Amino acid sequence: MKTNLVFVLLVLGTYFSTFAQQTQARKSEIKADVVEKGLIKVSIFYPYAEGKTFDMDYYEKSHMPFVAGLLGSNLVRYTIEKGIASGIPNTPLPFMAIGSFYVKSLPDYQAAIAPNRDAIRADFPKYTNITPTILVSEVVR
Amino acid sequence: MKTNLVFVLLVLGTYFSTFAQQTQARKSEIKADVVEKGLIKVSIFYPYAEGKTFDMDYYEKSHMPFVAGLLGSNLVRYTIEKGIASGIPNTPLPFMAIGSFYVKSLPDYQAAIAPNRDAIRADFPKYTNITPTILVSEVVR
Repeated sequence: MKTNLVFVLLVLGTYFSTFAQQTQARKSEIKADVVEKGLIKVSIFYPYAEGKTFDMDYYEKSHMPFVAGLLGSNLVRYTIEKGIASGIPNTPLPFMAIGSFYVKSLPDYQAAIAPNRDAIRADFPKYTNITPTILVSEVVR
Repeated sequence: MKTNLVFVLLVLGTYFSTFAQQTQARKSEIKADVVEKGLIKVSIFYPYAEGKTFDMDYYEKSHMPFVAGLLGSNLVRYTIEKGIASGIPNTPLPFMAIGSFYVKSLPDYQAAIAPNRDAIRADFPKYTNITPTILVSEVVR
C-alpha cells in the first residue's frame, strides 16, 4: 500500500514535469517563427559511416560554445541535434549530429569565422573523425 | 511507516524543486532562445544534383501544411529552409531544401504518417523529382 503510494507520486511527478516541458515548448514556438524567418542558417552536418565517432558531450560543452562565442551579436541562436535513426526503413543513419547557427548576416558570419578557421579545425579531432558537410540556407518558415 | 513518509516527502520535494528550477530557467531563457530541448525532430532533406528541381512555393503553401495537418497536437512546430550554398568553397550545394517537424512523440508521429504514406508520396512529383533523405534526431540544444 505504502509502496504503491510512492509509485503513484513518482508517476504523477513525471507526468507533471513532462507536461510542463511540453507547454513551455509550445509557448515559445510563436516567438521562434517570428524571429527566424528570413534569417541565415549555417548548418554543419556530420554524416554517419562505419568507424566514425562523435563525442556529443565535448561538442555541446566545448566546441559549439567556442564557435558561437566568435559570432557576437550577429548570432541569434544556435542548435544541436543528435541523429537517432533514418526515417526510411532499412537505410543507414544519415547523420550522427547536426549543429546550426542562426545569424542575421552571412558576410558578418564569414568575416568572424575566416580568421579563426585554423583554430576551429584544430578542435575537430577532439570530438570527431568525420569530415563535415556545411549548408548555408535561408529560413523560409 | 515513518521511514516511508520521509521518503515520500523527499521524492515530492525533489520533484517540486526540480520543477521550480526548470520553470525559472526556462523563463529567463525564452527571451533569447527557443526551448526545443528533448523534442524529436524529423527532417526531410532534398539533396541537390544536376537536373533536380524543387518548387519551394508549392512545398511551403501546400505540401508541408498538408503533412503538418496530419500530426495533430503531437506537432510542436515545423520549419522550412531553402539551400543557398555550400559552406565549403568549391563544393556543390548539399541540399536544395529541408523541411522539419518538431514532435513530442516519435511513435505518435509514425502512427499518424503510416496510413497516409501513399498520399504523401503521391504529392512529391508536384514539387520535386528528388528522392529525399530522412533523419530522426533528438534536439540536444
